[in-house]
Parts: sequence; C-alpha cells; structure tokens
Amino acid sequence: MKVYEDAEFTAFLDINPVQPGHTLVVPKAHFARFDDTPSEVIAKLYQVVHKVAPAVAKAVDAEGFNASLNNGLAAGQEVFHTHVHIIPRYIKDGLVAWPRYMGENKLEQVGQKIRAALKEVVAK
Amino acid sequence: MKVYEDAEFTAFLDINPVQPGHTLVVPKAHFARFDDTPSEVIAKLYQVVHKVAPAVAKAVDAEGFNASLNNGLAAGQEVFHTHVHIIPRYIKDGLVAWPRYMGENKLEQVGQKIRAALKEVVAK
Repeated sequence: MKVYEDAEFTAFLDINPVQPGHTLVVPKAHFARFDDTPSEVIAKLYQVVHKVAPAVAKAVDAEGFNASLNNGLAAGQEVFHTHVHIIPRYIKDGLVAWPRYMGENKLEQVGQKIRAALKEVVAK
Repeated sequence: MKVYEDAEFTAFLDINPVQPGHTLVVPKAHFARFDDTPSEVIAKLYQVVHKVAPAVAKAVDAEGFNASLNNGLAAGQEVFHTHVHIIPRYIKDGLVAWPRYMGENKLEQVGQKIRAALKEVVAK
C-alpha cells in the first residue's frame, strides 16, 4: 500500500515487514543499487525518508526507527532497485543489533586503505 | 581514526565495529537525532555516505555494505549526535537480517495512519 508519492519518489508498506509500519522509500527512476544511484538522487531520496519516517513512527506509536539500506546481495539486498527501509522500533521489541566483531581489527591499516580508496573514488 | 573530512562532515572508523572497516559519517554541526537534523544537512550527509561507502568496501574487499541509521534509544542509537553507519558485508559473514514480523499486520489501517500522519508532518 502506497503511503507517499511525489514526482520522483514513492513510499509504500513492505508486505513482509520486520515491524508493522515497515515502509520502503523508492526512487521512480531505476537504479539497481545505492552505489550506482546518482548523488543528487541519493540526496533527495533521504530527504523523503526524513519526511516520511516521523509519520511512520507516529502512525504506529513507535519509540524510534531505523533507516537502513542494503547495497548488494551480501548486504541482504533482495530487490535490485534502490530503496531505503524505514523500520519502526520499540524499546521492548526484542530486535537485537548486530554483534561486535571479535576478530583482529587493524584500525590503522584499514583506515589507511579507506583513505587511499577514497582518493581513487573521488578522482574518478 | 579519521578517514574523511570536509567543511561540514567527517567520517571515522567505529572503535567497536560489526566488521573491520565499519565507518561512521557525522555532521560537524550538532543534531541529536536524524529526525531533528535539518533536511539540507540530511541530503549532504548521505551524499558523503554515498562517496565514502564504496571506498570502505574497496578497502576491506567487501562484497556489499549496509548504510544504517538508528533514530532514538529504541532503535539502538547510543550516541546522540546524528551519524550513519557504513558496515562492510560479505556473503558468508554470518550476519543475519532481522526476522519478519509474524503477528497480525493490518496493512490497510497502518497505511491510512501513515498517510494521515504525513499530512500533519508536512503541514507543520
């Protein structure tokens, strides 16, 4: 069921929700993933999320919400058309956050690699 | 460790990562939560996420990533300064998506409530 629409975006209820009120915000133009969606579309997409999410929370008396995006199969993306999940949350909903990584984590090395990769991405 | 900075935003490695490379993107101006952050800041914030996330994925050879935001204590927000999590993902990382809601879900009623709430939000 559609809950929002403008010239470029639409928002509708997820038919397999994590919580009632679970809403998807979607650009009308087709882009398969977040990372191949133009930057200007991302900006507007999240402005719609910013407008719709408080209404979702209010409608289902939620105490908070998550705005989550899955980029790629490995991240849990099931439909290859960019979309943002708005998930209503409650203190006692029993949904748990992902566990912390307990393996070796070389912050310095990883940080340097990200900086280097970012230079390449920006240079493109 | 900082991996990105511009005039209005910074990005740094989460010291308690879900996966190595887990990065937080943060506006320099203080807003406690997503829903009290101005719309123009949200737009730019996610443009930074859009720029940084592919670099994070590349740096740690990730097969995908999540861009997640927690709004409010009930949603798992721990630090009350708006920030977006970039979490590198792998097909076999064992992180599982949230379970589907199995209770009664009145899509039509919930949808109507969201539409009504959205009218109030937009009217403000």
